[in-house]
Amino acid sequence: MSIPGPGYAITARVDAPAHPTSAGDLTAAVGQVGGVVTAFDVVEARTESLVVDISVNARNTEHVEEIKTAIEQLEGFSVRKVSDRTFLLHLGGKIEVRSKVNLRTRDDLSRAYTPGVARVSMAIAENPSDARRLTIKRNTVAVVTDGSAVLGLGNIGAAAAMPVMEGKAALFKQFAGVDAWPVCLDTQDTEEIIRTVQLIAPGYGGINLEDIAAPRCFEIERRLRELLDIPVFHDDQHGTAVVVLGALRNALRVVGKKFSDIRVVVCGVGAAGSAIIRLLGSEQTADVVAVDVDGIVHTGREGMDDNLVSIAAQTNKDGKQGTLADALVGADVFIGVSAPNLFGADELRTMNDDSIVFALANPDPEVDPTLAMRHAAVVATGRSDYPNQINNVLAFPGVFRGLLDAQAHDITDEMMLAAAEAIADVVAEPNPSFIVPSVFDQSVAPAVAEALRTAASKQARRGEVEAG
Amino acid sequence: MSIPGPGYAITARVDAPAHPTSAGDLTAAVGQVGGVVTAFDVVEARTESLVVDISVNARNTEHVEEIKTAIEQLEGFSVRKVSDRTFLLHLGGKIEVRSKVNLRTRDDLSRAYTPGVARVSMAIAENPSDARRLTIKRNTVAVVTDGSAVLGLGNIGAAAAMPVMEGKAALFKQFAGVDAWPVCLDTQDTEEIIRTVQLIAPGYGGINLEDIAAPRCFEIERRLRELLDIPVFHDDQHGTAVVVLGALRNALRVVGKKFSDIRVVVCGVGAAGSAIIRLLGSEQTADVVAVDVDGIVHTGREGMDDNLVSIAAQTNKDGKQGTLADALVGADVFIGVSAPNLFGADELRTMNDDSIVFALANPDPEVDPTLAMRHAAVVATGRSDYPNQINNVLAFPGVFRGLLDAQAHDITDEMMLAAAEAIADVVAEPNPSFIVPSVFDQSVAPAVAEALRTAASKQARRGEVEAG
Repeated sequence: MSIPGPGYAITARVDAPAHPTSAGDLTAAVGQVGGVVTAFDVVEARTESLVVDISVNARNTEHVEEIKTAIEQLEGFSVRKVSDRTFLLHLGGKIEVRSKVNLRTRDDLSRAYTPGVARVSMAIAENPSDARRLTIKRNTVAVVTDGSAVLGLGNIGAAAAMPVMEGKAALFKQFAGVDAWPVCLDTQDTEEIIRTVQLIAPGYGGINLEDIAAPRCFEIERRLRELLDIPVFHDDQHGTAVVVLGALRNALRVVGKKFSDIRVVVCGVGAAGSAIIRLLGSEQTADVVAVDVDGIVHTGREGMDDNLVSIAAQTNKDGKQGTLADALVGADVFIGVSAPNLFGADELRTMNDDSIVFALANPDPEVDPTLAMRHAAVVATGRSDYPNQINNVLAFPGVFRGLLDAQAHDITDEMMLAAAEAIADVVAEPNPSFIVPSVFDQSVAPAVAEALRTAASKQARRGEVEAG
Repeated sequence: MSIPGPGYAITARVDAPAHPTSAGDLTAAVGQVGGVVTAFDVVEARTESLVVDISVNARNTEHVEEIKTAIEQLEGFSVRKVSDRTFLLHLGGKIEVRSKVNLRTRDDLSRAYTPGVARVSMAIAENPSDARRLTIKRNTVAVVTDGSAVLGLGNIGAAAAMPVMEGKAALFKQFAGVDAWPVCLDTQDTEEIIRTVQLIAPGYGGINLEDIAAPRCFEIERRLRELLDIPVFHDDQHGTAVVVLGALRNALRVVGKKFSDIRVVVCGVGAAGSAIIRLLGSEQTADVVAVDVDGIVHTGREGMDDNLVSIAAQTNKDGKQGTLADALVGADVFIGVSAPNLFGADELRTMNDDSIVFALANPDPEVDPTLAMRHAAVVATGRSDYPNQINNVLAFPGVFRGLLDAQAHDITDEMMLAAAEAIADVVAEPNPSFIVPSVFDQSVAPAVAEALRTAASKQARRGEVEAG
């Protein structure tokens, strides 16, 4: 049974008797059917009756009906209407465009628009690098999706992806002052996506690919990195990998192990899994074993696509074969970015001492986190209701802040590792329940941005030396 | 010689002697070389010297140098630095993305982003028309260009077009609360432009095409109108045509003539001219004669493209041939959207009594406006330093406000005529110096929006009747 979360928050306007016990009766009734009361306001009080607004976190639509029934079964109570607070928040969209210039007088207009703007345009035509100085390019990122792998919802298309991309844009601004714009493309053709992003690129200082299905996302990212002179970051790959690596650094500190000594099982080789495997390689991890629905990935396996072939070549030193359970025997770390409820206590027991379990499938992890905590030294999930939430919000705002500030032309694995290290280092003294900072820790994005700027300038200097 | 305008505004920081005559000496010196002083501030006063900032409108870079020299020739004066106020205004771009939702707590995040956003996305996946309710689509317009015909600058490309499109976005917000986003495309291929706009369309409630060269712009607009279920408006065509028609309505009121009695010469058959000719047709204008660089457009002319062939078929009832001068003989109205200095007093004299001259070429009109005022009853230009400025800002913000409010799927000639009428009607009592409202008249955009909404709902009702 899923726990009622604020994603399904309702406010019910209720007519109630004007009686001292009414508040208690109402909140008790809601609580008895599992609704979590988050607010209670009397909006109108008459001699014989009250009108109250009660805000409740529910599990789903059926649960909302159950709560409504529970209230109406109380003597003298009736529900006027139920507002869905999540939908109210999204009405009309979550972002807007604001002008940074005043346009109050003819002079303002002459400078910001015609005729004054002509000189600014000509300056860019003559010196294209001036675009970063004289336009929004300097601070602006496109959040690009084809709507093919949106959250856990799958292929819901461009229009339905908009609320997610708008939310992402809001987060970019909130956490790092980055202006991000949703670009939801009405195609799922790899070539069309690549070409379209290339054509719109002049207005942006970076591209954040989002919720594009694997394996298409790999080619799109690779080709765009070649084609564009601005950084291309696929958040589902690199954002997740950066936060996972940061968390793993601290988890290893907690258990006193090193990357060079551990065997890691990565379950799921889509966007996130593939990128995690690559960054684990950059960290000189002793061994990584990848597992997908067909079991352990190894060089002898039949029918693998390009991505799997490449993963098989980089991983599984000992040529293991078999199932997830086989892979887990003796493993130090499990990282799941796959599907719910894949294993239990039996498999956990076979892992090495002081094991680390990152069960990141959402909303239901690969293994019950409470169970995992009994066997593993450190457990992390993607959920906010357990300790150690692995959330991309820890990475992408600061990563792009740093990339934009550095006017970087691309993002390297070295920069991503620097970002992971910065996230880890925000936690001064990691412990089993605290290996990553809170998503609301305001020091994270600036620390990540600083790490990116430093890594970018190192790379730029190296580039100059090589060119010289 | 062009008049110094605020488009070339500088601020010079000057060291000056601490003497009562210094302010006078400085402003006089600047004025003597033709600089228009707009502000004077003492920023630092010592016993023997002053530091002052003097803001000046200049004509061009050479003029700035001349002004600088004039100041430095004054005994005891020196210029520390000259800042270009136009460039300062554009630094970092002119628009930004703002979040409309608070993301301060875990609950906020759960509603605005995951997991709450999933239900909002699913609602749109199940009912695509909900996109207008639950995303920014409802209030958002793409300002699309290929950078091929930017202002009078020509083909300067996508990046250099950004400052203009950002300015347009700022105007959209300022005048009508519309969220507009610049989409500067790095291609000038008709098919690629069409396809790209189609692919990005899910996020927008309307498309404003801008500064795309003719004749490519005609096909792009026509095809996109067929392909998309949101309105497509080409501002260089329709924005200009709407304002010209509005102005012409009032000019005709001033001289007491009717559309059904007048002969109009339209000089220039690019984007603007073609659209003006079409709207003049919708107004039942007695006759229109189109003229381009090769003279009068007539059905017998050789080597005409599709656009010219179509114009020839709709215009020039009497089959006139010859030059612009020939066309002007006996004409009631001249509308120029072409090139500077095409005719003078001789041609003006041959026009009908109470003639109307709209010489809209920028910055230098088809005929000297001061000269035209001596011969014609009403004169309009595109410039802010003469009466009757024809400026698209009067149309596009209100047009899109109305289209978005009406959730319109397209824009018709009838809606454009309604917009023109609304602009005209803002001027209660037109006179020769006042046929269009000021661009800063805040009643214009709401009036245009209201006219659009009314026209759109009429059309929707008619659509229902036809469908029924």
